[in-house]
Amino acid sequence: MASLNCSADQLALFFGPNTTNASGAADYICRQFTGVTDRFTDTTFAVDSTYLLFSAYLVFSMQLGFAMLCAGSVRAKNSMNIMLTNVLDAAAGGLFYYMFGFAFAFGGPSNGFIGKHYFGLKEIPSSSYDYSSFLYQWAFAIAAAGITSGSIAERTQFVAYLIYSSFLTGFVYPVVSHWFWSPDGWASAFNTNDLLFGSGVIDFAGSGVVHMVGGFAGLYGALIEGPRIGRFDQNGRAVALRGHSASLVVLGTFMLWFGWYGFNPGSFNKILFPYVSGSYYGQWSAIGRTAVTTTLAGCTAALTTLFGKRILSGHWNVTDVCNGLLGGFAAITAGCSVVQPWAAIICGFVAALVLIGCNKLAEKVKFDDPLEAAQLHGGCGAWGVIFTALFATEKYVNEVYPGKPGRPYGLFMGGGGRLLAAHIIQILVIIGWVTATMGPLFLILHKLKLLRISEDDELAGMDMTRHGGFAYVYEDDAEAHKHGIQMRKIEPTSITPN
Amino acid sequence: MASLNCSADQLALFFGPNTTNASGAADYICRQFTGVTDRFTDTTFAVDSTYLLFSAYLVFSMQLGFAMLCAGSVRAKNSMNIMLTNVLDAAAGGLFYYMFGFAFAFGGPSNGFIGKHYFGLKEIPSSSYDYSSFLYQWAFAIAAAGITSGSIAERTQFVAYLIYSSFLTGFVYPVVSHWFWSPDGWASAFNTNDLLFGSGVIDFAGSGVVHMVGGFAGLYGALIEGPRIGRFDQNGRAVALRGHSASLVVLGTFMLWFGWYGFNPGSFNKILFPYVSGSYYGQWSAIGRTAVTTTLAGCTAALTTLFGKRILSGHWNVTDVCNGLLGGFAAITAGCSVVQPWAAIICGFVAALVLIGCNKLAEKVKFDDPLEAAQLHGGCGAWGVIFTALFATEKYVNEVYPGKPGRPYGLFMGGGGRLLAAHIIQILVIIGWVTATMGPLFLILHKLKLLRISEDDELAGMDMTRHGGFAYVYEDDAEAHKHGIQMRKIEPTSITPN
Amino acid sequence: MASLNCSADQLALFFGPNTTNASGAADYICRQFTGVTDRFTDTTFAVDSTYLLFSAYLVFSMQLGFAMLCAGSVRAKNSMNIMLTNVLDAAAGGLFYYMFGFAFAFGGPSNGFIGKHYFGLKEIPSSSYDYSSFLYQWAFAIAAAGITSGSIAERTQFVAYLIYSSFLTGFVYPVVSHWFWSPDGWASAFNTNDLLFGSGVIDFAGSGVVHMVGGFAGLYGALIEGPRIGRFDQNGRAVALRGHSASLVVLGTFMLWFGWYGFNPGSFNKILFPYVSGSYYGQWSAIGRTAVTTTLAGCTAALTTLFGKRILSGHWNVTDVCNGLLGGFAAITAGCSVVQPWAAIICGFVAALVLIGCNKLAEKVKFDDPLEAAQLHGGCGAWGVIFTALFATEKYVNEVYPGKPGRPYGLFMGGGGRLLAAHIIQILVIIGWVTATMGPLFLILHKLKLLRISEDDELAGMDMTRHGGFAYVYEDDAEAHKHGIQMRKIEPTSITPN
Repeated sequence: MASLNCSADQLALFFGPNTTNASGAADYICRQFTGVTDRFTDTTFAVDSTYLLFSAYLVFSMQLGFAMLCAGSVRAKNSMNIMLTNVLDAAAGGLFYYMFGFAFAFGGPSNGFIGKHYFGLKEIPSSSYDYSSFLYQWAFAIAAAGITSGSIAERTQFVAYLIYSSFLTGFVYPVVSHWFWSPDGWASAFNTNDLLFGSGVIDFAGSGVVHMVGGFAGLYGALIEGPRIGRFDQNGRAVALRGHSASLVVLGTFMLWFGWYGFNPGSFNKILFPYVSGSYYGQWSAIGRTAVTTTLAGCTAALTTLFGKRILSGHWNVTDVCNGLLGGFAAITAGCSVVQPWAAIICGFVAALVLIGCNKLAEKVKFDDPLEAAQLHGGCGAWGVIFTALFATEKYVNEVYPGKPGRPYGLFMGGGGRLLAAHIIQILVIIGWVTATMGPLFLILHKLKLLRISEDDELAGMDMTRHGGFAYVYEDDAEAHKHGIQMRKIEPTSITPN
Repeated sequence: MASLNCSADQLALFFGPNTTNASGAADYICRQFTGVTDRFTDTTFAVDSTYLLFSAYLVFSMQLGFAMLCAGSVRAKNSMNIMLTNVLDAAAGGLFYYMFGFAFAFGGPSNGFIGKHYFGLKEIPSSSYDYSSFLYQWAFAIAAAGITSGSIAERTQFVAYLIYSSFLTGFVYPVVSHWFWSPDGWASAFNTNDLLFGSGVIDFAGSGVVHMVGGFAGLYGALIEGPRIGRFDQNGRAVALRGHSASLVVLGTFMLWFGWYGFNPGSFNKILFPYVSGSYYGQWSAIGRTAVTTTLAGCTAALTTLFGKRILSGHWNVTDVCNGLLGGFAAITAGCSVVQPWAAIICGFVAALVLIGCNKLAEKVKFDDPLEAAQLHGGCGAWGVIFTALFATEKYVNEVYPGKPGRPYGLFMGGGGRLLAAHIIQILVIIGWVTATMGPLFLILHKLKLLRISEDDELAGMDMTRHGGFAYVYEDDAEAHKHGIQMRKIEPTSITPN
Repeated sequence: MASLNCSADQLALFFGPNTTNASGAADYICRQFTGVTDRFTDTTFAVDSTYLLFSAYLVFSMQLGFAMLCAGSVRAKNSMNIMLTNVLDAAAGGLFYYMFGFAFAFGGPSNGFIGKHYFGLKEIPSSSYDYSSFLYQWAFAIAAAGITSGSIAERTQFVAYLIYSSFLTGFVYPVVSHWFWSPDGWASAFNTNDLLFGSGVIDFAGSGVVHMVGGFAGLYGALIEGPRIGRFDQNGRAVALRGHSASLVVLGTFMLWFGWYGFNPGSFNKILFPYVSGSYYGQWSAIGRTAVTTTLAGCTAALTTLFGKRILSGHWNVTDVCNGLLGGFAAITAGCSVVQPWAAIICGFVAALVLIGCNKLAEKVKFDDPLEAAQLHGGCGAWGVIFTALFATEKYVNEVYPGKPGRPYGLFMGGGGRLLAAHIIQILVIIGWVTATMGPLFLILHKLKLLRISEDDELAGMDMTRHGGFAYVYEDDAEAHKHGIQMRKIEPTSITPN
């Protein structure tokens, strides 16, 4: 690019000795350009901050999506419980991520394993991170906790929830994000010293860092707790414990879709970054392309699920389609910025099959996850990590992760196997880390009888026993008493004629 | 505007022969300005992309609005069905618009009738369109399909839905948007060669292109299917088949309102476009004004409906007010950018009357549209097209559609009748095109017995027969069986034993 | 900052007499810089408008939040009523704020008490305000009315609602915002002539201007109407009249949280404003910090409420946590831009205690506010005003309110007591003004028997008697008749006793 590099010395030479004050003139002119450069700096910070802040707000709106998706997917009698956990993910997560989490994740320079600066936002803003960076990363952290809460829904003590959620948001997740996203992280593709396998891990928005961490944490929780009462009958056959509101499921899914445009395209952090200055092609295009790959992966996964489940179950099921859609999003999240739109279609297609397969497997091994969260975020997330290593294109990888020409890219795109090797390491390391941290935590809670609620509580529903009452009141006592009516049931499947 | 047009040759002449290296100095200085210009180009792309992307996300959020509005407006037994169609509008629409739709709509240079480039986003980004343009237009395309699904709700086979929705999003709608919005379109106000009646059609955000297309497609579908069972009694009187949740209706309406700020102001595509450089007045003002006209039209329509329906029906009805509000939005969509705020109030007032009138007419002719979508989007959309031709102001028309001074504007503002002529052509052509494409499609589906569901399915509800069950489960079977109670009240504190 | 201040005269002197055309060269070069400056002006307007418009959309989305929060917090039989009031806050507010409100609030130069320009947006855009400013402020005005509607829910005549809402949005609130936010306002911290106590009131986003006004208006309405039937039993004990849907409460709360990122950080209006040009630290950082303080205050208040209510009531209550969260937000709104993040934690902690205390007091004095709106917005809002006067930091106050060095700041931060004095004045003046305007209005409505509904209406629910029916229909008549089942209709008109 034609840069702003006004050198007064050089310009003074051009003016030469006949100019009354050559160096004065040159200084004067170049100082104007310094002013111009400063104003571009200001403009760039303002534009990038606008972009990042509104992306953060979108990612935050996913918490609303999770809350509605979770509420709709559980039985009415536990809906207040699960919504409370979603509110507290955000609230407790806010305090823990402020005090420790952000520091562990991005507090470089570090030893590559865990950050150690910026506790309580000390020294923020710095030249690397502003308050908007914290806000954006906080919204990611609470998403991870939100995933896990789905897996262990309808049977977990509230205290256990408070403990694991704080631990996950404040420590387990930040450490993983340090490894893969901090410029200091040992496996980060941004690492400026030493790239793992000369490549580092390209997990752009976190199929591994967020979704696998949340999903595998949920896997351990749900495994240790065991299935909900009634989820498998005495013959071991799976019984659908239907969520109480498809409307809330669809509402939550659309909010998550909406928010994902903050999650994936927002992970660029900066939009005013030209690839070739003065051209229409720059990071803004890459950001738009990322929104497109995200969209196409989700759409394809939704359609694949629609027809796949039609064949398997005989009906067109909206909640399954919603889950398939989200599985497509979870999968494309790693590679969204570095693959072609057509590849995103492949990503979504396979993600839907992965989810169907994982669900089949879960039923077979009597694993009960009310939100399919372990299957969806863990399974599809892992597929997304692999997918990226296969389909990342050379051009996009070098644009999005600049400054290291010749770095590896997708195996199927001719970029060799080193990226795939790094990504397999990522999968193993994430599973290992979650196993080593969340596994023992859930086990200890289990041993201390702090994990699972009592059978009575479970049958009655936690809302009645722990949260002050049932979530819905469509009938009014005063009126009912006044008119002396008995009571009328809403649900149609158990109609008993009078 | 004081432009950046540094000419080294000219500057060198000023320096003259006594300067040691006059052309070197001039070159050096002008090259700095070239760098400045390039950075402004980068900045402009980044700012405009930020604006367009977040507008696209807002328009996408309307799909959530449609889903909730539709769900709440139908009976509970069909709510999963309609929400599934809304999810699939977005999902199938994503794939079809990626493969064909965008190319048909904007793939110029074309013959004026249908585009022929950019299939599968080939050659994107170009100097005209970036990925963000695709995303924005996709969100529009799925809105059109969403409108139609409301008209034929509660009685349409799911397969018919899949067929018409793909056809509409992938072909019918893109062709119309090509005509009126592509710089190649034969009736586009952006057409650089030859403007229809020297004017072209000013359908800024699509009262005609989106709302009339969706509404008239729905009109044909609903006409061919006939009314829902029970909608008109044996004496031919209309029976209200009330939607099952006013909360969902209000939720959906507010989401649509929210999203409309992406739909109308977002249709400028670019915000960093000065009308007079260095002044506070520029396209950013026009965008703000567009948000204001949109708001005022909707507000006025809502209030008009409130009092109008109070007089007609005797009560204050929130769902009617919601529909009136949306009718105001559908009407202002064509002219939002080129009319004064006070004119928007007229637009909204008349839109509410148009909707009330269309609904009266629909009852009279026994036309059944569960969402009033044909009346609202078709009727109010057509009014909006006419309204624009009456109230478009000269100044705003020339700012928003620059480069053709002396072009016609609103009849009532002294701009002559040519804009009105063009807009009457638009209405006729859209009705004709939808009649020629969607009419036969619905007829064929009808003949093949693929359009309407069976009477049994309709009475039982599609959710039970086709979509895997009822959308809501407020009572828990397991618990009921265990406790052996028959009817159980939802509210826990005042249970009266049988 | 190295400014753009190219002086052709000065530059010509440097070139001197040997340059062929020194003044021509200097003119030529400086004219280029004028062009650069103009383009920066354009860019700044575009960036700031983008920021302000999307912030306005976020604030608008709070109206959806209020609607869902209110609906979920009242009994099902009044949910259509309250949602209609929320729709009409926005709709009637749009027209009144367009015609009068904005002019009263920002139409300077004024006498300090009430503005007098910009009626009907005449002379907009000006160099001070663009259409986006109007849109942003309108979204604030309707929030105030939304607060009040919560206090008087479930027992207020619809006509009374229309009257007070228009009066509040069109007059009462605009006058208050003129005092504290207009550069002409007698107590505004932006006042360029004369600062109250040398300080002016730092109510950045309106803990006083919006929340106290709405909350105290609600206080008077609810006081004059008296409690709902059944709210206190014959022994005077409080009876919880539970809201009908916790899902809607959580949905509304999250939407309000989402929208608050437009409310607080958006109140900067401009983001492209460097504090030191060319540095990473500027108003964009202050905006991010404001989002962080807002988040932390809400999170802390939520957690405090969680544990506080657990101790007091014995269960973990999600709707209480939601209210606590919102109380934290209402409190931080005044000082969000001028306090440290750690201080926001204190703010939220105390806000939760204030809300609990106000609720205790309300029960004791038999005050019934179905949304706790008077307690939450009035009580926590007042605390927020005090909090700001205690914790505002010198540096931030001078950055956010520049141009008056040496101005007072927070008492606990060493800034003396003058800010606190100004803030106590604010509290008194707001209470006085609302008492003098809304008090008489509600009293007159009460005397004219236009305020409270009849006992029959209240027992039956306003939806049935005034708004055309019950909000929810989960059972379908046609189906029921066909299958010969008895009837369990939700709609209360066809109750058949067993």
